[in-house]
Amino acid sequence: MAELETFPNRHRSRDYTIVHTCPEFTAVCPKTGQPDFGTIRISYVPDRRCVELKSLKLYLFTFRNRGIFYEHVTNVILDDLVRALRPRRMTVEGDFRVRGGISTVVQASYQARRRGRRP
Amino acid sequence: MAELETFPNRHRSRDYTIVHTCPEFTAVCPKTGQPDFGTIRISYVPDRRCVELKSLKLYLFTFRNRGIFYEHVTNVILDDLVRALRPRRMTVEGDFRVRGGISTVVQASYQARRRGRRP
Amino acid sequence: MAELETFPNRHRSRDYTIVHTCPEFTAVCPKTGQPDFGTIRISYVPDRRCVELKSLKLYLFTFRNRGIFYEHVTNVILDDLVRALRPRRMTVEGDFRVRGGISTVVQASYQARRRGRRP
Amino acid sequence: MAELETFPNRHRSRDYTIVHTCPEFTAVCPKTGQPDFGTIRISYVPDRRCVELKSLKLYLFTFRNRGIFYEHVTNVILDDLVRALRPRRMTVEGDFRVRGGISTVVQASYQARRRGRRP
Amino acid sequence: MAELETFPNRHRSRDYTIVHTCPEFTAVCPKTGQPDFGTIRISYVPDRRCVELKSLKLYLFTFRNRGIFYEHVTNVILDDLVRALRPRRMTVEGDFRVRGGISTVVQASYQARRRGRRP
Amino acid sequence: MAELETFPNRHRSRDYTIVHTCPEFTAVCPKTGQPDFGTIRISYVPDRRCVELKSLKLYLFTFRNRGIFYEHVTNVILDDLVRALRPRRMTVEGDFRVRGGISTVVQASYQARRRGRRP
Amino acid sequence: MAELETFPNRHRSRDYTIVHTCPEFTAVCPKTGQPDFGTIRISYVPDRRCVELKSLKLYLFTFRNRGIFYEHVTNVILDDLVRALRPRRMTVEGDFRVRGGISTVVQASYQARRRGRRP
Amino acid sequence: MAELETFPNRHRSRDYTIVHTCPEFTAVCPKTGQPDFGTIRISYVPDRRCVELKSLKLYLFTFRNRGIFYEHVTNVILDDLVRALRPRRMTVEGDFRVRGGISTVVQASYQARRRGRRP
Amino acid sequence: MAELETFPNRHRSRDYTIVHTCPEFTAVCPKTGQPDFGTIRISYVPDRRCVELKSLKLYLFTFRNRGIFYEHVTNVILDDLVRALRPRRMTVEGDFRVRGGISTVVQASYQARRRGRRP
Amino acid sequence: MAELETFPNRHRSRDYTIVHTCPEFTAVCPKTGQPDFGTIRISYVPDRRCVELKSLKLYLFTFRNRGIFYEHVTNVILDDLVRALRPRRMTVEGDFRVRGGISTVVQASYQARRRGRRP
Repeated sequence: MAELETFPNRHRSRDYTIVHTCPEFTAVCPKTGQPDFGTIRISYVPDRRCVELKSLKLYLFTFRNRGIFYEHVTNVILDDLVRALRPRRMTVEGDFRVRGGISTVVQASYQARRRGRRP
Repeated sequence: MAELETFPNRHRSRDYTIVHTCPEFTAVCPKTGQPDFGTIRISYVPDRRCVELKSLKLYLFTFRNRGIFYEHVTNVILDDLVRALRPRRMTVEGDFRVRGGISTVVQASYQARRRGRRP
Repeated sequence: MAELETFPNRHRSRDYTIVHTCPEFTAVCPKTGQPDFGTIRISYVPDRRCVELKSLKLYLFTFRNRGIFYEHVTNVILDDLVRALRPRRMTVEGDFRVRGGISTVVQASYQARRRGRRP
Repeated sequence: MAELETFPNRHRSRDYTIVHTCPEFTAVCPKTGQPDFGTIRISYVPDRRCVELKSLKLYLFTFRNRGIFYEHVTNVILDDLVRALRPRRMTVEGDFRVRGGISTVVQASYQARRRGRRP
Repeated sequence: MAELETFPNRHRSRDYTIVHTCPEFTAVCPKTGQPDFGTIRISYVPDRRCVELKSLKLYLFTFRNRGIFYEHVTNVILDDLVRALRPRRMTVEGDFRVRGGISTVVQASYQARRRGRRP
Repeated sequence: MAELETFPNRHRSRDYTIVHTCPEFTAVCPKTGQPDFGTIRISYVPDRRCVELKSLKLYLFTFRNRGIFYEHVTNVILDDLVRALRPRRMTVEGDFRVRGGISTVVQASYQARRRGRRP
Repeated sequence: MAELETFPNRHRSRDYTIVHTCPEFTAVCPKTGQPDFGTIRISYVPDRRCVELKSLKLYLFTFRNRGIFYEHVTNVILDDLVRALRPRRMTVEGDFRVRGGISTVVQASYQARRRGRRP
Repeated sequence: MAELETFPNRHRSRDYTIVHTCPEFTAVCPKTGQPDFGTIRISYVPDRRCVELKSLKLYLFTFRNRGIFYEHVTNVILDDLVRALRPRRMTVEGDFRVRGGISTVVQASYQARRRGRRP
Repeated sequence: MAELETFPNRHRSRDYTIVHTCPEFTAVCPKTGQPDFGTIRISYVPDRRCVELKSLKLYLFTFRNRGIFYEHVTNVILDDLVRALRPRRMTVEGDFRVRGGISTVVQASYQARRRGRRP
Repeated sequence: MAELETFPNRHRSRDYTIVHTCPEFTAVCPKTGQPDFGTIRISYVPDRRCVELKSLKLYLFTFRNRGIFYEHVTNVILDDLVRALRPRRMTVEGDFRVRGGISTVVQASYQARRRGRRP
């Protein structure tokens, strides 16, 4: 699996928000073997580390030929990013294209259990 | 009636949201016998079960030739889904096309009476 | 005046919202005698009764040749609908087209004084 | 009927185009007695006379309580304007709102039989 | 099958265009038995007869539970309307919603073989 | 200066909102002498008086050839309207077009110090 | 009146198009004394000279307090620019905001009588 | 390679157009090994055969892990479809997402050398 | 570095908001040496000083040939503006264009530690 | 100056179109020394060579700190690309952002003098 690289957050004294939007996400439906397509939106308040953009791109590409459901993939991306970045807060949203006339959005969030500092 | 199939929620430790949007909903007006058209949006926080997408599609198709009012159909879909999924929270929205120069949206919500865990 | 017809709310145990949007509203400016045009949006949480769509259309048509100001017409529609439906909550919004280079929106709300039950 | 007033075209040596768009058109359906709503677009190359804007507005208001079909109203407006202005070319388009789930556009044109001069 | 009713064209001396747009079209896929959804756009230059709007709506509803392919349904609607109206020109366009990640538009035209008269 | 005319609020028993949007605002930059252009949005909850639409238009036209900064003009309009109407609440927003590649919005609010009544 | 300044066209061997769009045009209605607002679009194929952008802006500002009709102002701008630039081709379009519920576009063109060279 | 399946065109006496739009196209850049994403639009006038929608989807999926340039892929799809369908006319357009701040569209067309029949 | 010029806030008795949007921001990626592009949005409640628009433009241009990361540049602009203006509240948002198929937004806020006055 | 690299066109037997759109173009105004921003659109029918995307990006970046007028830059890009590619046809469009309230588009085309072959 592609390593999620990080770099130090130079503005730790402040809670601020970073949003990455990747409209080029694709995986494979584990049931039908057909490709799924969607947009992944990642929003977080960094603590000590920020995610490096190129490694994020490569990480998202690892799903390309992997069979995985919408509900699962969104939670897995959240888990992997939380493990790599230990952010103060993070939300991952997967916005998937129409299948059988129905489009689907899955949104999962993480909130660090921490001592204070809120905007 | 089409069975609403479910699959186990693999991320129960977290409150997260799933939104299904079906712009291909049609039923029949019980008063005029004319078809009605609209978009059904279903948003929920799953507990033990998620709804399987294909069975959801088939379930929504069962209204195709059924005479039912806007206000009723939105509440009935909410009731059926709550019964099948026992979600933590759910909102169903029916957004119906113009009739007599007036468009109509009906939105109904369900909130499980439970012990805590809130995002 | 056209009678606002109602039908029984079959889902009284739940607070849910109904929104009717009528972009075909017209009245007459009492000052200039010129027609005014706009969109009327009605949003409410029903209690015992829902408004019947066709009678709502006919009711809104009664303003067609009536001289009435923007501020007044929005409040009058709210008053008439509250009287006919006794809703739990209701908002009426009149969104009127440009006159003298200025467009105008008037929004008025009603909240029943009642024993609890909130979504 | 409101008089269509005109004023002299000061730039007759040149073929140029004037487009008036009125999104506040309403008439009455002769079959159902219900109001119809739409947008009237008038595009013309003037010859000796241009239409005065205020009289155009008053002219269009004369249809407000008149029973007339979509196909007819568009052709009637074209005929009346051609009679009043004797333009080099003219197109009238009536773009009518949804009735029975169907919206309708009617477009009719006039071309003067004349000696040359083309842009 | 619903009768396509017509009424006399009162402006035969002029070639003019009528466009009807019906975004509430649905039929059934003959292969999968699943419903298809789309928008039907009909554009024509009438000769002696125009199509009556309500009968057009009822005609389009006859496809609701009929198994028929996109390519076929568009041509069939064109054939039926040409037979009923004998228009000077007509185009029918079926714009169908996404199936298997692909949306489809089918457009077919008819041109009467006649003596002249062109706008 | 044009007088801001008012008329009595006939629905004082209720807090309701009136929004006027004027996209035809222009003043002069006091520094460069060049015209500035923008949209003024006025939103208020009336108490005893509402602003008369035509006098509002004439009032906004008084800025046409006046040198005044963005920040100042928005606050001045708010002050003048508060003085004339004594509203329960009011917000004025000036949304000014690009100058030097930068567009600017200024938003100022007023809240009457009063005995209760909140929507 | 502001001088329309020009600079030499460095690419005379080629017919190419320059389009300037000014959404900040205002003049005064000669009938009502009220300000008019609109967008001026100028499109031309230069011959020996191009119009200098700042002088164009200042030229358009000269209409600010001048009473002039829509039809006239568009033709006058075309005449002035043709006189200053002697372009190969030019179109001026004035797109004016709603007055009395009607918006108006006036479009006038100029074509030099010249020896060939067409794109 | 996936077989492009076809079915007989039931309306051969008429030139009509079929447009398929697939916004879920992905291939691999042969230079960088990185995935490319885009929309493929196929528009054709069928002769004896139409392309079956599901086989078209499977055919487009065969590019998923194939290294191929934008210019080439668009022409290859056109060649393959022309070979399978022998259409009267066909256009293939590949609309590819931003790479290095630049987006790219490639459009190629085919026209059968045939005896007449034109719409 | 360009000086951020300020002018006195004439309406200090009131908390009001000023938003400047600059869609013409560019800097250089310190890793690749390639230009980055984006929109900078600055929103603040002034205290004693407002930022002068032209000096803000010149200040933002100083980043043009400077190597700096998205996360850093947004925080640096916030720090510089807070130092120059001492606002009551301020938010800076950098909305950067797609790189490697991913777009990025960074948003940072400042809140003065002060004695009360809240809108 | 950055070299415009090319690669062989593998589909020379067919006239087809390639469009590159770069919304990240910037140069410097030679008069004011201020940066200009815009979108460059390049559309061409290749003959023997296509332009390599990365070298095109680097070529467009060479204008970043160069003083050059709108009219000139568009023609220069066309000249440079025609020299490097010898295309069958090419159009370059520069779409520049608002300066002094006016936005500007410049469009120049090239057509090879050649033996036939037209789409």
